[in-house]
Amino acid sequence: MKKEEVARIRKKTAAFLKKAHIAIAPEEAKNIEVADCGLGDIEHMGLQVVVYENNERYCAKELVLFPRQAFPEHSHPAVGGGNIGKQETFRCRWGEVYIYIPGEPAKRPKAVVPEKYRPYLTARREVVLKPGDQLTLPPDTPHWFQAGPKGAIVSEFSSMSIDECDVFTDPRVRRIPEVE
Amino acid sequence: MKKEEVARIRKKTAAFLKKAHIAIAPEEAKNIEVADCGLGDIEHMGLQVVVYENNERYCAKELVLFPRQAFPEHSHPAVGGGNIGKQETFRCRWGEVYIYIPGEPAKRPKAVVPEKYRPYLTARREVVLKPGDQLTLPPDTPHWFQAGPKGAIVSEFSSMSIDECDVFTDPRVRRIPEVE
Repeated sequence: MKKEEVARIRKKTAAFLKKAHIAIAPEEAKNIEVADCGLGDIEHMGLQVVVYENNERYCAKELVLFPRQAFPEHSHPAVGGGNIGKQETFRCRWGEVYIYIPGEPAKRPKAVVPEKYRPYLTARREVVLKPGDQLTLPPDTPHWFQAGPKGAIVSEFSSMSIDECDVFTDPRVRRIPEVE
Repeated sequence: MKKEEVARIRKKTAAFLKKAHIAIAPEEAKNIEVADCGLGDIEHMGLQVVVYENNERYCAKELVLFPRQAFPEHSHPAVGGGNIGKQETFRCRWGEVYIYIPGEPAKRPKAVVPEKYRPYLTARREVVLKPGDQLTLPPDTPHWFQAGPKGAIVSEFSSMSIDECDVFTDPRVRRIPEVE
């Protein structure tokens, strides 16, 4: 992504958090992670992240999803050294998010995703989170998610995050951001 | 504490969270932990807690402090089994909180605490957290805190919580709640 585009999305993210009454420090606003997953289509597939803390024991982030923005299917496998893979809890703070995990496919899924991504979204059991709802995923569980029509803010509590070890279903995804 | 008193404080806590635009589920509202630490003086010394998640790897809570409410000095020592003690991050979401840790004593501390508790509040380096500010404490660090005049809401992200292993400076404290 181009620097100017990242800066624009950071500003938009900070404004979104403010609207939801979630305070971040000026330094955090400058460092918001803008993840387009190398797909060049952040409006549909991507995520904005404020990392509050990430250490060897635990991690806490705020995930910001604009209206109908989705994040591609991935899992957090074992990474060695006794780490069985990232376990995580998603807690909806604002808006609505649809999380898809393995299991009985939703009959009328709420997510609306461009055709080109569908072959790589295999998890089809739907969990709808509204403010105050949360879901904990065991390590190595394939999952993807999309915000509802107003967007969503989701707190993520987890064991340590090692993004470069995540495994994505879509081979086009590159998780580590590249700034042009 | 008497059941009726716990119910009253739970209601007050839920209203406080609502005012700060923090959503909790009805089931969570019913189970808010009201900790008077066995001191029978929750107005001055105590804490309200919504535990979002607590597993062997990580823990996330919302701490609610009413105006000038304080929580007594304690630390989280090693508990065996390779657990070197709880590490935690306090992130202020609303209001203002004064956290005291070992180090250079504050010249004009902001906390105002009844005389009877002062001998047991030995950590005197002051860290002031406003919304968007946070502080991470290594395991086994003595600390205590007090909300400012409007109260405070603080997110706690940490390794697993094992409250019964906490060590308090004041021998009168009993951390595990007793309901009459």
